[in-house]
Amino acid sequence: MQKSNNLRNVKLVIAYDGTNYFGWQKTNAGPSIENELQKVIEQITGEKISLQAASRTDAGVHAEGQVVNFFTSKENLNLSAFTFSMNRLLPKDIIVLHAAYMPQLFHPTLSCLGKEYRYFLCISSVQHPRHRLYSWHVPQKINLSLIKEATSLFIGKHDFATFCNAKTKDSYVDTIREITAFECVQLPENRLCFCIKGNHFLYKMVRNLIGTVVYVGRGKIPIETLPSILLSRHRPLAGVTAPAHGLFLQEVYPSAAPLST
Amino acid sequence: MQKSNNLRNVKLVIAYDGTNYFGWQKTNAGPSIENELQKVIEQITGEKISLQAASRTDAGVHAEGQVVNFFTSKENLNLSAFTFSMNRLLPKDIIVLHAAYMPQLFHPTLSCLGKEYRYFLCISSVQHPRHRLYSWHVPQKINLSLIKEATSLFIGKHDFATFCNAKTKDSYVDTIREITAFECVQLPENRLCFCIKGNHFLYKMVRNLIGTVVYVGRGKIPIETLPSILLSRHRPLAGVTAPAHGLFLQEVYPSAAPLST
Repeated sequence: MQKSNNLRNVKLVIAYDGTNYFGWQKTNAGPSIENELQKVIEQITGEKISLQAASRTDAGVHAEGQVVNFFTSKENLNLSAFTFSMNRLLPKDIIVLHAAYMPQLFHPTLSCLGKEYRYFLCISSVQHPRHRLYSWHVPQKINLSLIKEATSLFIGKHDFATFCNAKTKDSYVDTIREITAFECVQLPENRLCFCIKGNHFLYKMVRNLIGTVVYVGRGKIPIETLPSILLSRHRPLAGVTAPAHGLFLQEVYPSAAPLST
Repeated sequence: MQKSNNLRNVKLVIAYDGTNYFGWQKTNAGPSIENELQKVIEQITGEKISLQAASRTDAGVHAEGQVVNFFTSKENLNLSAFTFSMNRLLPKDIIVLHAAYMPQLFHPTLSCLGKEYRYFLCISSVQHPRHRLYSWHVPQKINLSLIKEATSLFIGKHDFATFCNAKTKDSYVDTIREITAFECVQLPENRLCFCIKGNHFLYKMVRNLIGTVVYVGRGKIPIETLPSILLSRHRPLAGVTAPAHGLFLQEVYPSAAPLST
């Protein structure tokens, strides 16, 4: 749908459990978050709409604060009532946390200054069933101080081509990205939470970084080789891609403030 | 399987996510926790076994510390290796936390001195997707002090016939039970956790008590009528049966210590 001055730009902050979806983006393979949201918005507004998202999360990835937008010609849409209706109509694994009118030029990807992802690991011999859909289970012996040292090596501005899915690497103009924070926090029940913040991320970059620091923690990649692996731009030298179900899109940092009306 | 001095009595403490099961007990309706455990134990031991459980949890109910037992003629079963194998073979929503050899007369139900159940409620207008399988969502306005007052009225020894499923009430010799603790704790993200401890519970008693205190909190049952509802022995006077998916069998208090061997 074309933007025009007659259309209002609506931002939604949403959370979802990605377990039962083929990711954000619409696909013929099965249900997607985008498709569920679009169906419900069109049902409420009676208009055909299209959605943009800050992050096109992969199949199985969860979100605590995904940001999306759409344009509507409805001038009197009460966003509080709209949010209530959406949450009544959406499946129970997707919720709208917040809705706001934004300036015409707001775009979830282009207006995004940065994102925070979280990744959960369970490092006990057995993973509690409650966590199985939301944590990667790594029962092997892990050296936590090596993991923490490895995360700190990635902070700053680097060429992260090594950590980009090889097939998609060429689709980027450049592969230099900045990671502003990469922490590993210990949680109860032998769980770890990685918090990673950055300006933009390459395709599967977070999961490839997590897979690599876990390989360092397990002793499969010597910590002293990490700087040369980062410089190599050669994906096979890094660790495995961590599974999707441990990853949460935690927050999207916007560059635009909502309109006061 | 008959008990005999040649058989060893093995206790297992297990946890499970009951979402995908038709409850503890084997049924033709679909998968059960009992059936999954039995298949795996028989695969490992090569023997036909039968299982007893401290609580035959209903469809959708979860467990953090269910206690079960079986008898085996294997004399040299290494329980640590056995537990490891079980957790490799079981589906990811059932785990064995602990295994121990018990005296011949140990029986999970008969040797049980008491149980703790926990029940989770989400009282915000929208329930976070992460909690949807593990909390009852009650978006209506709730008076928390009324809920806390209601729980305290049930502590002690009472005839709980009012809170027993009507069809099964006559199957009990008596319906007097003792509740030793019934607390309501506030958790982050607008959740409540009810902790309820007692010697034995009638069929669906916990869920009927929770449904009733929630009705008190919502103003659907006046708190001053609770004592007469308790005395009435008439199920329809109490509140709704709270849904299964908010309920966890937290712990089973045993009367027998494990054998030292």
